[in-house]
Amino acid sequence: MRAEDVRLLRDDTPGCAEVIHFNNAGSALPPTVVVDTVIAYLRHEAVTGGYEAAAAASDRIDGVYASLARLFNANSEDIALTDNATRSWQAIFYALEFKPGDKILTCRAEYASNAIAYLQSGAEIVVVDDDESGQLDVADLQRRIDSRVKLISISHVPTQGGLVNPAEEVGAVAEQAGIPFLLDACQSAGQLDLDVTRLKCDALTGTGRKYLRGPRGTGFLYVHPRLRERLEPAMLDLHSASWTAPDRYEVVDSAKRFEVWERSFALTLGLGSAVDYALEVGLPAIEARVTELAAKLRSSLSELPGVTVHDVGRRKCGIVTFSLADLPAPEVKELLARAKINTSVASRGSAQYDFTGRGLPELVRASVHYYNTEDEIQSLAGEIERISTGVSSTRS
Amino acid sequence: MRAEDVRLLRDDTPGCAEVIHFNNAGSALPPTVVVDTVIAYLRHEAVTGGYEAAAAASDRIDGVYASLARLFNANSEDIALTDNATRSWQAIFYALEFKPGDKILTCRAEYASNAIAYLQSGAEIVVVDDDESGQLDVADLQRRIDSRVKLISISHVPTQGGLVNPAEEVGAVAEQAGIPFLLDACQSAGQLDLDVTRLKCDALTGTGRKYLRGPRGTGFLYVHPRLRERLEPAMLDLHSASWTAPDRYEVVDSAKRFEVWERSFALTLGLGSAVDYALEVGLPAIEARVTELAAKLRSSLSELPGVTVHDVGRRKCGIVTFSLADLPAPEVKELLARAKINTSVASRGSAQYDFTGRGLPELVRASVHYYNTEDEIQSLAGEIERISTGVSSTRS
Repeated sequence: MRAEDVRLLRDDTPGCAEVIHFNNAGSALPPTVVVDTVIAYLRHEAVTGGYEAAAAASDRIDGVYASLARLFNANSEDIALTDNATRSWQAIFYALEFKPGDKILTCRAEYASNAIAYLQSGAEIVVVDDDESGQLDVADLQRRIDSRVKLISISHVPTQGGLVNPAEEVGAVAEQAGIPFLLDACQSAGQLDLDVTRLKCDALTGTGRKYLRGPRGTGFLYVHPRLRERLEPAMLDLHSASWTAPDRYEVVDSAKRFEVWERSFALTLGLGSAVDYALEVGLPAIEARVTELAAKLRSSLSELPGVTVHDVGRRKCGIVTFSLADLPAPEVKELLARAKINTSVASRGSAQYDFTGRGLPELVRASVHYYNTEDEIQSLAGEIERISTGVSSTRS
Repeated sequence: MRAEDVRLLRDDTPGCAEVIHFNNAGSALPPTVVVDTVIAYLRHEAVTGGYEAAAAASDRIDGVYASLARLFNANSEDIALTDNATRSWQAIFYALEFKPGDKILTCRAEYASNAIAYLQSGAEIVVVDDDESGQLDVADLQRRIDSRVKLISISHVPTQGGLVNPAEEVGAVAEQAGIPFLLDACQSAGQLDLDVTRLKCDALTGTGRKYLRGPRGTGFLYVHPRLRERLEPAMLDLHSASWTAPDRYEVVDSAKRFEVWERSFALTLGLGSAVDYALEVGLPAIEARVTELAAKLRSSLSELPGVTVHDVGRRKCGIVTFSLADLPAPEVKELLARAKINTSVASRGSAQYDFTGRGLPELVRASVHYYNTEDEIQSLAGEIERISTGVSSTRS
């Protein structure tokens, strides 16, 4: 991505003038078009009526499914819209029925919400080893396959650790074994160039607010017809199913069986414009830029005394996690916030297997996006150096 | 409500100048403050960061729980926020575990989404009779109570029929029998003066977009501690539960166990301002005005040849349902829309027991709110008369 392109993308992003935003893995700064789309629709709705506005916008709403399908190289009827990534993931996971003795294979870096659901399911949880690089060990995954394994379910990009798990290799193993593969792409959608035909996942779930730069309160899922057809959703309403006679209902055919009828169409259209924006910038270009900037940040931080970067994996992403020798992560985050630098904190409760296994302290998480600049990376590294050497600073 | 008050409330509602809105049971026109609150927060979020804006607004977000608690005469810790009424209702219903032989008692006017969930649960569904007025027959409910009844679950104000079901009497029966009572208040919240201590419900669920005039994509629930404590939600995440050790999770204590972590705080704050607005107008005044206007509309329509009003019940609400002898409801709705009058259509698929039981055709639904006027009611009745007598008109 050329410097001129980055400048144009920053001009499109009002937040870039106000803060140095390294919390893109939390919620990214939206481009103007996303906010304007949501606001224009809200204003239209207010003078038209909520149902009336939605009916008039039905083609545009259909277009959001088409945009997401294009993003993942899928078909529109395999896309469902939800309120967030958790709802998307739950829609698939809880539709699977686990019997005692069934096994779920997952990764060491797995996210808390998913792990809690595994525990609640009563299935046996098998945490696949990491390889020496720190990513999921595909050979170990292969060894753990047996007839009791009912699901392979991993986070593509974990919330901590900078890692990109080898999802395509996992997909190949799952396909060969005939085991459903659920890919949590909450942190990878919008950051990496994803293609469900290459990933060979049976379902992929994600959110609008992170790397896609869409509104909070939006989520989506892709589900392959072969999985969809055998899954009755765990919860139904009059949108996911039809009440066809007093004693009978029929679940709808498309991925919409995993949706709920009511939703904010303002946010839906905002998500659509975020996806279109990402497609226009181009996912390969986004992936390259994010990866490059994060590598620079890791390198800068690694050189600082008292700073440890905790990222692992053969392939790394836009998430950078680190700690300071003498200062807890929440305090570092707070000091950075005073300098108008947004970061976040990753802690044990978000990823017990990984934090426990690696003996990690709480981590500062700085997650870069393509609109971040080399200057901003220097500012962050400089601020960390000042904090680390005990020199407080109140830049702004 | 004085004419002057109505004028001020209409001045606060930009939509009133654009359309005659009788689709308040679908999604009401919001007051200016609701739209402004959502938009201001979205703009703030865009230049601050999504997580950073939410952290700064945490007191205001807490205030939304307090406002809803005030609306229902409940405690804040008994309130949960969701994305819509369906999510709220599902959060409670699907947390109940039904065994074969268990019974659910419901009403004849029950809503499709709830009925589909009853069917999915595998429990025996017992549809309580209506009394001669058309409301749920409390004596019949009482007769149906036995040790196999595990839930009493009704719609307070059904989507069709103009009816207010006798929820307080149902609550008294449920309390005496020690059976959980789930009240779907999707259409009554914001329209009627609700008090959970009088309703004696164990849970009450609702939406922001209907009579509360809040944003689409918002929902809430109240749950009594005695029910909450015995219910583990059917789905969990890292907000409703904590991952306390690799093999252990703990469900949170408050009603937030029925929430999901991620949400649009813009919409949440919009919901809060809608609730505050309703509290300021006053629920007793709203209820009186809506009931009075709807009675006038029913009376006007009843006088028209070829028009049949299908509303039932001892106590009626703001929803008016009717049919024309020679014109299907969707066509009537469409002709009204051309005259800039918003209504909706209620059909069998939304309420099989009621439509089948009463042999109803598709119905036109005109639902009034306090900001509607006597003049608008005359316009609607006049338009229906023109349509009914075959004289087409294209007012505007």
